[in-house]
Amino acid sequence: MSDVKKVVLAYSGGLDTSVIVKWLQETYDCEVVTFTADIGQGEEVEPARAKAQALGVKEIYIEDLREEFVRDYVYPMFRANTIYEGEYLLGTSIARPLIAKRLVEIANETGADAISHGATGKGNDQVRFELGAYALKPGVKVIAPWREWDLNSREKLMNYCEEHDIPVDFSTSKKKSPYSMDANLLHISYEGGILEDPWAEAEEDMWRWSVSPEAAPEQPTYVELTFDKGDIVAIDGEPLKPHEVLSRLNRMGGDNGIGRLDIVENRYVGMKSRGCYETPGGTIMLRAHRAIESLTLDREAAHLKDELMPKYAEVIYNGYWWSPERKMLQAAIDATQDNVNGVVRMKLYKGSATVVGRKSEQSLFDASIATFEDDAGAYDQKDAEGFIKLNALRLRIAAGKGRQAD
Amino acid sequence: MSDVKKVVLAYSGGLDTSVIVKWLQETYDCEVVTFTADIGQGEEVEPARAKAQALGVKEIYIEDLREEFVRDYVYPMFRANTIYEGEYLLGTSIARPLIAKRLVEIANETGADAISHGATGKGNDQVRFELGAYALKPGVKVIAPWREWDLNSREKLMNYCEEHDIPVDFSTSKKKSPYSMDANLLHISYEGGILEDPWAEAEEDMWRWSVSPEAAPEQPTYVELTFDKGDIVAIDGEPLKPHEVLSRLNRMGGDNGIGRLDIVENRYVGMKSRGCYETPGGTIMLRAHRAIESLTLDREAAHLKDELMPKYAEVIYNGYWWSPERKMLQAAIDATQDNVNGVVRMKLYKGSATVVGRKSEQSLFDASIATFEDDAGAYDQKDAEGFIKLNALRLRIAAGKGRQAD
Amino acid sequence: MSDVKKVVLAYSGGLDTSVIVKWLQETYDCEVVTFTADIGQGEEVEPARAKAQALGVKEIYIEDLREEFVRDYVYPMFRANTIYEGEYLLGTSIARPLIAKRLVEIANETGADAISHGATGKGNDQVRFELGAYALKPGVKVIAPWREWDLNSREKLMNYCEEHDIPVDFSTSKKKSPYSMDANLLHISYEGGILEDPWAEAEEDMWRWSVSPEAAPEQPTYVELTFDKGDIVAIDGEPLKPHEVLSRLNRMGGDNGIGRLDIVENRYVGMKSRGCYETPGGTIMLRAHRAIESLTLDREAAHLKDELMPKYAEVIYNGYWWSPERKMLQAAIDATQDNVNGVVRMKLYKGSATVVGRKSEQSLFDASIATFEDDAGAYDQKDAEGFIKLNALRLRIAAGKGRQAD
Amino acid sequence: MSDVKKVVLAYSGGLDTSVIVKWLQETYDCEVVTFTADIGQGEEVEPARAKAQALGVKEIYIEDLREEFVRDYVYPMFRANTIYEGEYLLGTSIARPLIAKRLVEIANETGADAISHGATGKGNDQVRFELGAYALKPGVKVIAPWREWDLNSREKLMNYCEEHDIPVDFSTSKKKSPYSMDANLLHISYEGGILEDPWAEAEEDMWRWSVSPEAAPEQPTYVELTFDKGDIVAIDGEPLKPHEVLSRLNRMGGDNGIGRLDIVENRYVGMKSRGCYETPGGTIMLRAHRAIESLTLDREAAHLKDELMPKYAEVIYNGYWWSPERKMLQAAIDATQDNVNGVVRMKLYKGSATVVGRKSEQSLFDASIATFEDDAGAYDQKDAEGFIKLNALRLRIAAGKGRQAD
Repeated sequence: MSDVKKVVLAYSGGLDTSVIVKWLQETYDCEVVTFTADIGQGEEVEPARAKAQALGVKEIYIEDLREEFVRDYVYPMFRANTIYEGEYLLGTSIARPLIAKRLVEIANETGADAISHGATGKGNDQVRFELGAYALKPGVKVIAPWREWDLNSREKLMNYCEEHDIPVDFSTSKKKSPYSMDANLLHISYEGGILEDPWAEAEEDMWRWSVSPEAAPEQPTYVELTFDKGDIVAIDGEPLKPHEVLSRLNRMGGDNGIGRLDIVENRYVGMKSRGCYETPGGTIMLRAHRAIESLTLDREAAHLKDELMPKYAEVIYNGYWWSPERKMLQAAIDATQDNVNGVVRMKLYKGSATVVGRKSEQSLFDASIATFEDDAGAYDQKDAEGFIKLNALRLRIAAGKGRQAD
Repeated sequence: MSDVKKVVLAYSGGLDTSVIVKWLQETYDCEVVTFTADIGQGEEVEPARAKAQALGVKEIYIEDLREEFVRDYVYPMFRANTIYEGEYLLGTSIARPLIAKRLVEIANETGADAISHGATGKGNDQVRFELGAYALKPGVKVIAPWREWDLNSREKLMNYCEEHDIPVDFSTSKKKSPYSMDANLLHISYEGGILEDPWAEAEEDMWRWSVSPEAAPEQPTYVELTFDKGDIVAIDGEPLKPHEVLSRLNRMGGDNGIGRLDIVENRYVGMKSRGCYETPGGTIMLRAHRAIESLTLDREAAHLKDELMPKYAEVIYNGYWWSPERKMLQAAIDATQDNVNGVVRMKLYKGSATVVGRKSEQSLFDASIATFEDDAGAYDQKDAEGFIKLNALRLRIAAGKGRQAD
Repeated sequence: MSDVKKVVLAYSGGLDTSVIVKWLQETYDCEVVTFTADIGQGEEVEPARAKAQALGVKEIYIEDLREEFVRDYVYPMFRANTIYEGEYLLGTSIARPLIAKRLVEIANETGADAISHGATGKGNDQVRFELGAYALKPGVKVIAPWREWDLNSREKLMNYCEEHDIPVDFSTSKKKSPYSMDANLLHISYEGGILEDPWAEAEEDMWRWSVSPEAAPEQPTYVELTFDKGDIVAIDGEPLKPHEVLSRLNRMGGDNGIGRLDIVENRYVGMKSRGCYETPGGTIMLRAHRAIESLTLDREAAHLKDELMPKYAEVIYNGYWWSPERKMLQAAIDATQDNVNGVVRMKLYKGSATVVGRKSEQSLFDASIATFEDDAGAYDQKDAEGFIKLNALRLRIAAGKGRQAD
Repeated sequence: MSDVKKVVLAYSGGLDTSVIVKWLQETYDCEVVTFTADIGQGEEVEPARAKAQALGVKEIYIEDLREEFVRDYVYPMFRANTIYEGEYLLGTSIARPLIAKRLVEIANETGADAISHGATGKGNDQVRFELGAYALKPGVKVIAPWREWDLNSREKLMNYCEEHDIPVDFSTSKKKSPYSMDANLLHISYEGGILEDPWAEAEEDMWRWSVSPEAAPEQPTYVELTFDKGDIVAIDGEPLKPHEVLSRLNRMGGDNGIGRLDIVENRYVGMKSRGCYETPGGTIMLRAHRAIESLTLDREAAHLKDELMPKYAEVIYNGYWWSPERKMLQAAIDATQDNVNGVVRMKLYKGSATVVGRKSEQSLFDASIATFEDDAGAYDQKDAEGFIKLNALRLRIAAGKGRQAD
């Protein structure tokens, strides 16, 4: 083993990362610093303190990162109307850069020379954690136990616990699920179990954050979202912080059966995987943001954003948040949001979040021009002839030379 | 007026285009050929014959183009998962190239030197008709009465009818609506009226093709869609022609409140406009196509398609179907669809069309690799380390030279 | 004629724009303000004052805009390695936004309600002037005499001069050329005459800024260019202002036969045209900028710049400098240039500008990693196996399912 | 060592790959099949037979692939005007997919279960060979000796030769160079040695295919290149096969000092490297292809090609020739070349290849429209006003609402 003196571990307090604490101490004969963050996963983080202490950890970091998470990661991402592969709202992907940053910062504070995480060798999260860590601290050593050890079954893990006196009730509640799950303020994800058959419909009792559309209220809920520079700053007129916005929209969306998603996606490591996601608030936010942009954003800027978005989504999905290309894309995106201000009115009903109205003092919609009624000369219809003629010129010349148009 | 001898008019049989027949005859002292097509707008086209005859038209074309429309225009477009500005399924845009092509073909058959249409000088449709016509017959003369005449109010039109003995019952039923509407097998659109205020919610009785989600059945409907090379060829196992597929999906979608859309969009002529659309079948098709691609399409091909899609959508929206750039994009898109075969299972319920399963003999999903269980060596997790290390190399070098990652 | 009270004219002092002064005064019965700028076209601008006075102009603006031109327009454009259609360095295009801005500013200062220019109705320049003017002063009236009048031959212009006592020696020297020319610090262009046959080679005596490669010195010239944040700030160690840099590089390039270009290009108005250009300094700058970026810019940022460049070039060529999409692209480009610092050494010889060396304190080239010699562990070659294996995974899965790779 | 029975080796006949033959036989106790191809590297391939026999190889493949190489790889790539990072013509990259394909085909013919190559663990070539092999034969075992063995210095290799009776004259002439070189019909490359300092100018005696511009003839050479569907089919009117075209252009270019390149490039494995290249024929072909396209290709197709090109270049550079994304891009590119026919006239002189004329029966250049003279009504200048007005509309609306244009 390479010479590691101190390692900062992303520690959930659950069984797996508790085993990792012990395994790191044993295998690398090093000190372990644990880092546990509340990013809205919906479980208490404070209990991780006692568990870490019980494992002999001396430096324990427990932090509430919810506001920073939504303000500095989720919101910038939503400015781009970001969706991966047409469907996925990147709920897991967007949380990793923040964790990576804090792992590195804590390593710098505590003089650690390594970081570690509990992600497997098959998934995207290992890539996201490690690319972030390398980008922020190039000389850091990364330890990924799941790629190194042979504890690759539940049984072996349990035996390891028994041999090392790790209380099995470290196992958190969600571990009883047949699914591999991950949650933060933006979403909860499910993989594994029967989902490994992409033809099998997800079972109703798998979903945790939302009621089924069938069980949602018979009456629609209307909500008004206020945007400032592309970010939601108030709900129904009440000013809220970013994480409060998302939290409330999660509740409203979940109550109305909104935000369930069942997809097969392409992982960066080269395989397809099937995952289910609940993103109630994010689903509402995405549609609302598009709606306010539809009113306030210039056409060509909007189209260019749409052309860049898949690349931006890929950059985040693949783990390159801390990269020059993300910085570059973010600069382009943010340069368009100055006037993306106003209010969007939405209807939430049994699984659907639909836009029913939008208004803005920066609106570029000009009824006096668009109207079917008399426009009092605001628009000269004769201009259209020259517009069409010159746009057609290259096509006409080609056709005139006998080119086939099809 | 320029020297026009015969003009082919896209004739709906309604009041406006009936006025145009007369106006063309008078203004240009020319023969008018009418062309009326069934592209699934949901109204009889045969009555247009008598109306045209009553207006003195001698060459009358009435055609059922539904199959050609869906097979050669709608289906190729859906292979690209095409959406304009993140929302609009291009229902109007995709019908125009076919009309333009037939106008030109009929002009060639009848020896006409001009074509004409009833689109206004403010919209996209004039552009789409005319770009198509110029691309297919570069020397054609185009007459756009709405840009030329002064009959720019309902009252003036009515007076014109009276003066010229045009029976006002030529006015079709849909003209009684306060909205400007357009329909074909893919969608029906609404503009104008109260929609000119983007904050105003559309009235329930405006919608014609779908029940409201609230009024939809309490029980979900499941449907299985079979794809062959990216196109749907069967519903619930029953082989159907393209227009039969779309027709049936329209019914199923409409019955379940699916496919309503309310947006502000950017017109090619430079203004924003607000439109409402019902696209029940198309909404189902789009999600289903993405789902079958998620299983059968290579990741990089899928991502490249996503990057090209906004451009492809813009090309169609702006009226450049008959252009070298559309041909080029179509070649790229079609080159990816050979293995896009299989079945998608969807749940339709109160406004939502959700994917619940997908299967394919060409599936690239490999459970033996993706599994959380023992994969028997199908994937070597240690490969991930080298993968990450080399992907991180450029970031590490930069960080090592003191560059900020953010 | 619409009610124009005062118009600001982009006035060269030459025959054509002198006729325009008179024609505007007569046709619109309005006051004319002339604006003449030195943007490095190589002719005195001060003589324009007397000519304008002789034509009865009272408000005369004559300005030296060379520094602003290079600093705020040319330099930002070169940060993107901008080339239109693979060849053209956009010498004419990039000067127009500055002229448009000054026209509008002068209109605001003088209370003018219109602007005017001497560009024809067939070219790109009318578009660039007018889009800029409309973007900066939306209510401005634009008068484009060449699209309005009937003085569409040299003879008619001469007659007009005679009738209106415009001295024909207003004709500047360059009007004696058989070519239509335009010049500024970035380039000089030639169109028309024998160039209208794209098979005809340009005559040697057409070129004005450069010697022929054959006539250039037998000995190469070496030059070192110092970059700071993507812009050249010194030549051979001597700090220079932007326009001094370009001016000196024009001389060095011209002396060595560098920067001649002969192309057929696609105009925004829909036709192809043939043009010849001399861009001596720009040709050197472009290669040098790429060279310093090759050393200091991250790979993915560089590739993304390359993907965006054609769009950015098109935006400028088409006249959309003053647009949200240009602002957005510029933000992305500028976000990459912080570390584009260092020195490039070039060899200028008989028509070629070749890079022979580059160095930078922000260099990302790491000889200790790239070396063919022993790298002392800086790079672990075994990492490459995992890198390749996972990058190949999607291809292997597809091939394993019988997909053809070709 | 894994159980390898027979391995096909890409064998140059040089010292390194001769050592690999022996090392494979020893290390894997397996049979080695050698494959040596003439792809225009300029050395005899037949001598490789005796060398392989002397090493105990029984199955020896020696093939002339020059025509296939240029026809099926170089030509399709040039249709896209492909350049990597603005400078590099991909001479090495484009040869690898053909070698990979033949390795796999020979493995299938000979029943081999593995392939091997002599590329190092730091470069791009390992990636290109292996991605190709995996894509074409997913279960193949790849052996990359440079990543496995410890013969990582010239001295160790020499010792190995001595111990294993490998005649050192196996060392080919080019090994005496201080540079790492690679050659095929498209180019010759140089890396290593003093080039590892990017500030150091390459020495004149390094270059092998071209004279220096200084030493080139004082008189220019003119050449006419005939294109058919985007490919050169004749030189100065003489029909030639693809590899004959390239071979002759290499000679003409080399004689005139054309095609030298000195760059720092970004490798796929994450590092920057400095390389020098001579691509005499390719440099001429690239400019000529752009010139014939400038005359015959539609503007929007041309611009879309330019936008896709950097991605296409990256795909090839990174080794993904045998991938769905390359197939997709090729389909788009090839769909544009039907009318790219005609003749380009070029002037070759002391390092420069300049276009001086182009003509085509499919020309889209229309002098009657573009002319500065009277166009007899071919183009109505008044159309430009409407064209500009509607293109400006969105900008005017925004400015009218107080938006800043900058």
